[in-house]
Amino acid sequence: MAVKVVKFGGSSLSSAESFRKVRKIVEADNSRRYVVPSAPGKRFPGDDKVTDLLYLVYDQFTQGLEYEETFDRIMARYEDIEQGLGLKTHIRDELISIRKNLEDGASQDFIASRGEYLNGLLLADFLGYTFMDASELIAFHSDGTYDDETTQKWSQVLEECDRVVVPGFYGRKRDGSIKTFSRGGSDITGSIVARAAHAEIYENWTDVSGFMMVDPRIVPNPKAIHIVTYSELRELSYMGATVLHEDSIFPVRKAHIPINVRNTNDPENEGTMVIPDSYLKYYHRDGPITGIAGRKGFTVITVFKDNMHNEVGFGYRLLRVLDRHNISFEHVPSGIDTMSLVISDENLKGSLEQILREIKNDCSPKSVEVHSNMALIATVGRGMVRSLGVSAKLFTALYEAGVNIRMIDQGSSEMNIIVGVENEDLEKAVKAIYKAFA
Amino acid sequence: MAVKVVKFGGSSLSSAESFRKVRKIVEADNSRRYVVPSAPGKRFPGDDKVTDLLYLVYDQFTQGLEYEETFDRIMARYEDIEQGLGLKTHIRDELISIRKNLEDGASQDFIASRGEYLNGLLLADFLGYTFMDASELIAFHSDGTYDDETTQKWSQVLEECDRVVVPGFYGRKRDGSIKTFSRGGSDITGSIVARAAHAEIYENWTDVSGFMMVDPRIVPNPKAIHIVTYSELRELSYMGATVLHEDSIFPVRKAHIPINVRNTNDPENEGTMVIPDSYLKYYHRDGPITGIAGRKGFTVITVFKDNMHNEVGFGYRLLRVLDRHNISFEHVPSGIDTMSLVISDENLKGSLEQILREIKNDCSPKSVEVHSNMALIATVGRGMVRSLGVSAKLFTALYEAGVNIRMIDQGSSEMNIIVGVENEDLEKAVKAIYKAFA
Repeated sequence: MAVKVVKFGGSSLSSAESFRKVRKIVEADNSRRYVVPSAPGKRFPGDDKVTDLLYLVYDQFTQGLEYEETFDRIMARYEDIEQGLGLKTHIRDELISIRKNLEDGASQDFIASRGEYLNGLLLADFLGYTFMDASELIAFHSDGTYDDETTQKWSQVLEECDRVVVPGFYGRKRDGSIKTFSRGGSDITGSIVARAAHAEIYENWTDVSGFMMVDPRIVPNPKAIHIVTYSELRELSYMGATVLHEDSIFPVRKAHIPINVRNTNDPENEGTMVIPDSYLKYYHRDGPITGIAGRKGFTVITVFKDNMHNEVGFGYRLLRVLDRHNISFEHVPSGIDTMSLVISDENLKGSLEQILREIKNDCSPKSVEVHSNMALIATVGRGMVRSLGVSAKLFTALYEAGVNIRMIDQGSSEMNIIVGVENEDLEKAVKAIYKAFA
Repeated sequence: MAVKVVKFGGSSLSSAESFRKVRKIVEADNSRRYVVPSAPGKRFPGDDKVTDLLYLVYDQFTQGLEYEETFDRIMARYEDIEQGLGLKTHIRDELISIRKNLEDGASQDFIASRGEYLNGLLLADFLGYTFMDASELIAFHSDGTYDDETTQKWSQVLEECDRVVVPGFYGRKRDGSIKTFSRGGSDITGSIVARAAHAEIYENWTDVSGFMMVDPRIVPNPKAIHIVTYSELRELSYMGATVLHEDSIFPVRKAHIPINVRNTNDPENEGTMVIPDSYLKYYHRDGPITGIAGRKGFTVITVFKDNMHNEVGFGYRLLRVLDRHNISFEHVPSGIDTMSLVISDENLKGSLEQILREIKNDCSPKSVEVHSNMALIATVGRGMVRSLGVSAKLFTALYEAGVNIRMIDQGSSEMNIIVGVENEDLEKAVKAIYKAFA
């Protein structure tokens, strides 16, 4: 029997009404057997997210401030859902017990995790599914890092369960204390559950219909991405496109399970399917380009040296300087007698002068030039290199838009072309590329 | 008074007739005060180069073979020139003395250097210039490497000389023995003399009218390059374009002296001017592209690793593997979770397996792919990046020619775009780029 793991984001579980949509979705497909809920999100712009309120209540209590009002707002959110759905989950008793834990000195992670815990109780009750606490499934090391080995052992139990709700976002350390992932971490829980349950698919239901080809703040109403591979998604996410929690990719990717990102408010829309690269042959895609993403704020350090090319170890010594400062780089474009380092300003912060000194010391360059204010744009599409004319189209589009190109890097991974432009040209360039391919 | 150093190649000094052309050239400009000759080259296809005959005569003698016939051919070449010009340089006495040296065990370098020495004697006599032996000007360390410090000291004497012929190709070690540069090394002598004489210009006279925009074996009768900067020339030479000896660039480049490459058989043609990059503002050039050069025989090693980008030091560890094997690389194109090494097959020879093992050990990659049979094409033009549309034109040309692009690297040196294609596509690609820009 087919198995799907379905994770619902906070805005999909923010009210009784949205719970009803979720039940409809779950019941529409008998294979949706494992459900991972987030905590209640915003019902309307300006509304609270319950997780924010939980962090607030924790801060207020530990700083000796008035917190009852905040706690009451949390309680009201859950009671609204419970009553709206006509459930008898006794959510008030749970909340009173949580307030007791708070007053007894419960940890921040414990308090923050209750958002998903309580929503999980309500959802299990509403769906008629078994509730299984994430603290029984997701393990953390005592230093707070995720313990995949123990998790894999614990979560084997899932295979024997029929229909289960597992709250997202948290797990348990060896000493029994509750530990959360970083914000948005329910995506990771869903991914881990999907792997443990040997799911055919991991459905991630949120409030958008998957990924767009380009940032809608730059191009209004852009085309959706129907199929994207894991590696393409990595490239796009890295360059700024965000829908899924970054770490949520690895567990399912490892297990070759596709992720389907879908919209709770538009369940007919097939959303975006994130697939292993090797599955691409089973799918049809329209054009050579999957998506375009860009980021500002890079600095280029260009090192000139006569006869650099005949000098073995030059590049190695150059990168060793960065390594010493624990700085990662984006690209290393090179000519015959030049080599450049492209570094994000964030990584470079405060170290530039010292790095330039060490480059002069270690590499004896003829000269060194520094250019800041560069933006990088990734045009991503697996198999792009085999599509004739992609570069022609791309660079013609940039030319016609009057964009100066400061750097180009296309590796042999056949997956993307990176173009460096001035920060101020980023939007113009992204628009032009989108127009050429969409 | 303006000073020019003029170097003539072997085909420009192969016969009495070509000596007359040379005298015409020298006398046409009063500032051509320092003349550096090569040994007599071919007068017609299939003819001997005297230097080849000298190496042969040395080999024959040391291996106990008959060498008289070869020696006589050498003697005939010089006597033809002497008699043809009506000179009384007593070149036969010189040659008899050289044969004596050979039989007394003279070194290979000594014998090889006599080609330039004898041509220098004849040319000085014919021009009425002072002959100055290169062994008094060009110094070598006892390990055989060029000794620039001593050379600079010795060659100060040149400034006080009026009109001088200095034979190319050789110099003297500390112990007094003769040492030659590598073949074609008269270019280097000319460059050193130009620097020592504080020349305004170093004229390098040969049998072609300077550099062509592209290899004439790929594109017949290509356009000439009128102006090329030292750095552009480096990039083009590295990628396969050769007219000047590579090492001949550095002495004049350091002294900011332009090189003018000209054709003895077409002295009206202004040839190619090689200028310091900083002089570019004084010259007008037609298009954004100076030249196109390509080379076959590269291998790409692509390393995949999840989250590579968050791993500081990955690139450093990857290049350290090459450093350990004393292997230099051409380019390091990178994506988010991939990094590639582009290495010439020549450099990689025999080490590939071991390198792959060490990459696996040192970098723990997810996977490694190796692609061979790649050619690199450099499209070179200083200031190209500031010329809008160069990339558009370039990639459109490649697209229309049906060339698959496997790699792109354009650094921020603003000087070239490197494109990787299949070996078999090299000619097609170079033709297409030339057609687009010429």
